[in-house]
Amino acid sequence: MTAILPHGGNLFREKVPAAVHTINGYGKVAGFEQVRELGALETPVLLTNTLNVGLCADALASYMLRDNPDIGVTTSSVNPVVGETNDGFLNDLQGRHVKPAHVWEAIARASGGPVAEGNVGAGTGTVCFGFKGGIGTASRQGWEGRFTVGALVQSNFGSREDLTVLGVPVGQHLRDDNLPQTGPGSIMMVLATDAPLDARQLGRLAVRAAFGLARTGSICAGGSGDFVIAFSMAHRIPHEVEAPVETGARFHDAALTPLFRAVIEAVEEAILNSLVAAETMVGRDGNTAYAIPLERLAALLTDYRRVEQDTSCR
Amino acid sequence: MTAILPHGGNLFREKVPAAVHTINGYGKVAGFEQVRELGALETPVLLTNTLNVGLCADALASYMLRDNPDIGVTTSSVNPVVGETNDGFLNDLQGRHVKPAHVWEAIARASGGPVAEGNVGAGTGTVCFGFKGGIGTASRQGWEGRFTVGALVQSNFGSREDLTVLGVPVGQHLRDDNLPQTGPGSIMMVLATDAPLDARQLGRLAVRAAFGLARTGSICAGGSGDFVIAFSMAHRIPHEVEAPVETGARFHDAALTPLFRAVIEAVEEAILNSLVAAETMVGRDGNTAYAIPLERLAALLTDYRRVEQDTSCR
Amino acid sequence: MTAILPHGGNLFREKVPAAVHTINGYGKVAGFEQVRELGALETPVLLTNTLNVGLCADALASYMLRDNPDIGVTTSSVNPVVGETNDGFLNDLQGRHVKPAHVWEAIARASGGPVAEGNVGAGTGTVCFGFKGGIGTASRQGWEGRFTVGALVQSNFGSREDLTVLGVPVGQHLRDDNLPQTGPGSIMMVLATDAPLDARQLGRLAVRAAFGLARTGSICAGGSGDFVIAFSMAHRIPHEVEAPVETGARFHDAALTPLFRAVIEAVEEAILNSLVAAETMVGRDGNTAYAIPLERLAALLTDYRRVEQDTSCR
Amino acid sequence: MTAILPHGGNLFREKVPAAVHTINGYGKVAGFEQVRELGALETPVLLTNTLNVGLCADALASYMLRDNPDIGVTTSSVNPVVGETNDGFLNDLQGRHVKPAHVWEAIARASGGPVAEGNVGAGTGTVCFGFKGGIGTASRQGWEGRFTVGALVQSNFGSREDLTVLGVPVGQHLRDDNLPQTGPGSIMMVLATDAPLDARQLGRLAVRAAFGLARTGSICAGGSGDFVIAFSMAHRIPHEVEAPVETGARFHDAALTPLFRAVIEAVEEAILNSLVAAETMVGRDGNTAYAIPLERLAALLTDYRRVEQDTSCR
Repeated sequence: MTAILPHGGNLFREKVPAAVHTINGYGKVAGFEQVRELGALETPVLLTNTLNVGLCADALASYMLRDNPDIGVTTSSVNPVVGETNDGFLNDLQGRHVKPAHVWEAIARASGGPVAEGNVGAGTGTVCFGFKGGIGTASRQGWEGRFTVGALVQSNFGSREDLTVLGVPVGQHLRDDNLPQTGPGSIMMVLATDAPLDARQLGRLAVRAAFGLARTGSICAGGSGDFVIAFSMAHRIPHEVEAPVETGARFHDAALTPLFRAVIEAVEEAILNSLVAAETMVGRDGNTAYAIPLERLAALLTDYRRVEQDTSCR
Repeated sequence: MTAILPHGGNLFREKVPAAVHTINGYGKVAGFEQVRELGALETPVLLTNTLNVGLCADALASYMLRDNPDIGVTTSSVNPVVGETNDGFLNDLQGRHVKPAHVWEAIARASGGPVAEGNVGAGTGTVCFGFKGGIGTASRQGWEGRFTVGALVQSNFGSREDLTVLGVPVGQHLRDDNLPQTGPGSIMMVLATDAPLDARQLGRLAVRAAFGLARTGSICAGGSGDFVIAFSMAHRIPHEVEAPVETGARFHDAALTPLFRAVIEAVEEAILNSLVAAETMVGRDGNTAYAIPLERLAALLTDYRRVEQDTSCR
Repeated sequence: MTAILPHGGNLFREKVPAAVHTINGYGKVAGFEQVRELGALETPVLLTNTLNVGLCADALASYMLRDNPDIGVTTSSVNPVVGETNDGFLNDLQGRHVKPAHVWEAIARASGGPVAEGNVGAGTGTVCFGFKGGIGTASRQGWEGRFTVGALVQSNFGSREDLTVLGVPVGQHLRDDNLPQTGPGSIMMVLATDAPLDARQLGRLAVRAAFGLARTGSICAGGSGDFVIAFSMAHRIPHEVEAPVETGARFHDAALTPLFRAVIEAVEEAILNSLVAAETMVGRDGNTAYAIPLERLAALLTDYRRVEQDTSCR
Repeated sequence: MTAILPHGGNLFREKVPAAVHTINGYGKVAGFEQVRELGALETPVLLTNTLNVGLCADALASYMLRDNPDIGVTTSSVNPVVGETNDGFLNDLQGRHVKPAHVWEAIARASGGPVAEGNVGAGTGTVCFGFKGGIGTASRQGWEGRFTVGALVQSNFGSREDLTVLGVPVGQHLRDDNLPQTGPGSIMMVLATDAPLDARQLGRLAVRAAFGLARTGSICAGGSGDFVIAFSMAHRIPHEVEAPVETGARFHDAALTPLFRAVIEAVEEAILNSLVAAETMVGRDGNTAYAIPLERLAALLTDYRRVEQDTSCR
């Protein structure tokens, strides 16, 4: 269970501009329709595993009701947003071991500062390119540091042979290296920015996440649920309307390209970070996902001249 | 809780072609992304109220696991499809009184034959144009009876003043008739056909549901979640792939218009049936939604010359 | 040929927020992809007939180049937006009689004030519900007159039997009244507002146009190209970016419902106006589309008690 | 001008299943709405430059009328499909030098067998990653050779620094190598397959084109029109409907992944082929786009150990 909070206030009362994008819709995400319609996020984003989406959406609603007792009574209802990947190789998926308390705890423990990566939260049981995957994050700046885009991924996708690191066909060399028998997997990608984008523009950002994903070797397999959720922290949308019109910042579409580049690079790095930070894990029935061998990875990057010569380039 | 089963077999093993369509996405439906991607429905469709979607999705997953113990273990996961409307005027919405047993019971009791209408299942607490709404159904044939389209609605939308019955501005005359203070509401519309349509064509059918909805006076208010789910019962899609290609029926797009007309008329009638079949209900805190007064309705239709002169026309 | 100009300045230099919406995509409109992506309109909107779209797009590009010689040389290219309906019953469609001079003239003659309706411009050859159709307009206000929505339609759709006027099944009574043999037709609907909506919100407005269309009896036939273009005149988007962020008005989504109602009523009335204003026309090969018989229409509205009793209601 | 014909018969009479996909909609393509709605292609696909789309759509309509004199008279109209990129750096874009005869000639000269690449047809004036781009093609097989996917691209996009060849950051090393001052460009990608896919499935294929594009270093810049058109040659859709239902092949969605891989690899290779096959060209005002230096490219691939060690891997 991983919780992402756009701000520390009451999200139902102060929503943030948001967009969702489905690259391959083989997945059970919750809350996408309302985000598409209204362009706003009004709950934390939860990441969990496939069969716990219903339970997490329910517990997330409970969490929101606690601070907003008028929901569904004197004001509208609330739209829980939940993403998921299938961790059935390591986890007893059918057991549905997530309980409401886990949801509330994940939200309560969310904080600013460095984000834990690897085998944490919703990344605990994920497998990526046949190695242990997990949570990974990265960020990039655009407009000479004026705006930042952050990416957080839950990596659970990919065939070993396709793994590509900084352009190097690492997976080809590690084809049979502790290869588990896993399914096609999925990836959740969450983007946050401090640029004052509207929902349509956040949607344009979200489309670019696929380009970062592709750089790591994904073929967007038919059974992979590849989803993007993007939000801006630059302004808040009040739940109550006092006047139909307010004044605020607008971002010019022609100024978006540096942020597109930021998305692509941040997503690529976040995925690689999720692999590098993850540790070998033994799961249900002794199923084991091994951490990517860092020494061999480093050796391959050196062999392919990516390390000494070229790391500064990208 | 209302359950709709495309067939009586194992839906996970034998899926049906399906499409979803969002007219106004202010709602919390589950399962739409995967139906869009794969064009298939693999669970019963559940209708419930807004805050029970998570719980119902969870219980529906449990139901599917019972007959398919390989889900998430040796085969892929399952995509629960759930629709909802907000019945918070009559119902203690925050109480979330739906339990898994209600879901399983609703599925177990689903049967062929005439469908109960009005204050039943997920229609128990709904309000439509300020009158008691509920479940309504209707069907129409196309191609000289060769194909049928059925519609089932969960009606929970509309402002009194807008209610239109067979073109007659009934709501204008019943403006203050026991008018409750309700929110903008929502409507779920489920379409089924025996025509062998593919998912894209079912999506074209689904678009026409809005035209039936509009005939009843809906203005598709900003807070109304207006959703359509459409499926075909003409063939089944096997979960396991034995060969990439099979042979089957294809419907010609140029032959769809009679089915479009069928959708529009069936949806309009289903909504009216949901009103006519519903009975006055007293809910939480004494909140009361009154049944549409049938005598006054009949008198208005007579006044406007819709009954004696014209009922045969439509 | 009909031209709609959001403002009298240089539209390429000062674009307006815009959205497009396809209800049924059986049509050959130009420019929709870029409006979807950028949420902006940078040319006049032209309405023409089906086989003249290419020519009109070309002539519209020429028009824009005249005032913007840097297009495609030192700045980006331009996105002509053109809509169409098929007027092949009255017009020699294959003759493609529109010439660039007609385009430029239509743009030059565009003006504020009352809009000509009926057999004018791109409405000259259209047929609607088997009567002579044409251009029609109407507008409605929302927020107590603070904001206005205007609709302009090019009506060329519908089967006679379906024609509905203020809820009265007029078409049923005029089934065989000078009925021509025409195809399924199409409708273009253009919406303009002075409310400061962004592109996503304009898209929400555009979705409601179908509800106005449905009220007139449309079944959105399979061969009907039913399209909506919506723009706001409240602010202008500069072509050149001086700074990535500017300040401006934002409209609150929760305040949109009055504008949704305005769209629906304006579209319904605009379609009816296009019929009422049109005059009988003899076209190619003696094909004739007759004006709707106004006396019979009035008599039917009286018979059905819509005229004396109820015109104030809607 | 490049013309792509799904088959040699009368495409209006015998359409083919098709889909379109817009990655970034900054472009002026024609015909996308109707392909989306009907899932069918009924004309050759033309590729041209930005300001010639209107003219080409018009000439393509003329071409179709020649063999189908009933279009717009006794049957429906025709939907020309045209793609474009902006070749304004080398070409006098405003001159719009394409004439109808060029369109007809391009269609007449279309043939089976090897496809010319580089500076040909609609690739004559394109620039890609700051080198001379053009037309490129490639194909891959899936299902052990049972099905083939072919890709044809018109490459006109990318910043030099981003050019990536087989994972090698070639553009970083050739940053200032004859660098022209060009805009963000665009790419058209056309996919063809002999697998019997329906339109929705072709849409899923089209989504994967972005993954091949991303491998070459594209950041999908804001001003780049990145579009995909996909069709199947496995069966034909008759224009006239004799019966609403026919029998035919259906492809199973769960069998698509090998074709997704094929799309990605074919698109990546087609783009590289367009670069390698192109030759230095001097265009308007002496503007020059240089061919990618093949020796330096080979040296870089060797340096990065992609040539001797690894070409067999991908």
